[in-house]
Amino acid sequence: MSKGTETRHAILDRAVALSSRLGLCGLTLGRLATNLEMSKSGLFAHFASKKNLQLQVLEWAGERFLDDVVRPAFKAPRGEPRVRQLFENWLRWAEARNIPGGCPWVQYAAEMDDQPGPVRDTLVEQQKGWIGILRECVCRAVAEGHFHKDLDCDQFAYELQSLMLGWHHAARLLDDPGAETRARRGFEALLKNAR
Amino acid sequence: MSKGTETRHAILDRAVALSSRLGLCGLTLGRLATNLEMSKSGLFAHFASKKNLQLQVLEWAGERFLDDVVRPAFKAPRGEPRVRQLFENWLRWAEARNIPGGCPWVQYAAEMDDQPGPVRDTLVEQQKGWIGILRECVCRAVAEGHFHKDLDCDQFAYELQSLMLGWHHAARLLDDPGAETRARRGFEALLKNAR
Repeated sequence: MSKGTETRHAILDRAVALSSRLGLCGLTLGRLATNLEMSKSGLFAHFASKKNLQLQVLEWAGERFLDDVVRPAFKAPRGEPRVRQLFENWLRWAEARNIPGGCPWVQYAAEMDDQPGPVRDTLVEQQKGWIGILRECVCRAVAEGHFHKDLDCDQFAYELQSLMLGWHHAARLLDDPGAETRARRGFEALLKNAR
Repeated sequence: MSKGTETRHAILDRAVALSSRLGLCGLTLGRLATNLEMSKSGLFAHFASKKNLQLQVLEWAGERFLDDVVRPAFKAPRGEPRVRQLFENWLRWAEARNIPGGCPWVQYAAEMDDQPGPVRDTLVEQQKGWIGILRECVCRAVAEGHFHKDLDCDQFAYELQSLMLGWHHAARLLDDPGAETRARRGFEALLKNAR
């Protein structure tokens, strides 16, 4: 890996961390430069514009999410174990990556839903991709006989996504020490109803 | 109501609407003044600072939420009917109030979770108050015999809050036309498990 690529990756790691707290709109080239103790013009050479930076941050966060959450889960056996592994990896990934604001997708989703344009479009594609992965893993658990054959896989994916948003709300906004236990209980109830 | 109070309320209505799209951080006195076709100095006379504006927006949105969601639900009979009415009112309130960005609490929650200070503190108190109301109504449904006596009321409140966050994500970010149906199905499943 060239020195330039290494620098770019280090900048993007920092940009994901910063945007998890300040949002994609709060991620200005000036703020990122200050955070990196780098000149704004040096940063500009890498990203050219705030919009381009935002798009690259989404792409980078998407790659890291695949590395940390999705790919390792696909090493678990198909069906319920894989669904469980997705859930576990998801709970852990922001902390494991030292992303200080929790899962950046939760931040991006609430922030960008009313901001039309290429950044929102990219985010929507990514989030649809993620829900699609969840759904596929749930359908596979039906095919394997782990979940009952009339299960509405889209509904399961919706409720699991909801539980994770609720966990973020309880843990990060309300500082509820029981948030993770509640997310786990909700997940077990979801599995129980699906079996 | 004095002319000054009327003006202040009209400004706050507009500020809630604007912040539902741009967030509390995006709600600058300059932007709000432009939106209201009012001078920035005129607005400054009402609110003195962005932080004060944010705090008054939270208070105002809180009052409207009580008017639209909570108080009408308390006209429904205690127990499950009241829980159901809270859910129905919540689904409708942002649209009924012409708040264009959907439920502003979803926006505020994701935005403020990493921004320590009085605005976050106020929001946390309000959100804890809301979860407390949900919880009380669920516990009352247990006392009335509508829900089984071992029900974990905190867990029910957590899962209902989660469903609403999921609905916002699916409806507003993903433009999923089935979002409301999914939220309703999730709610009915929650009720069924509680009975």
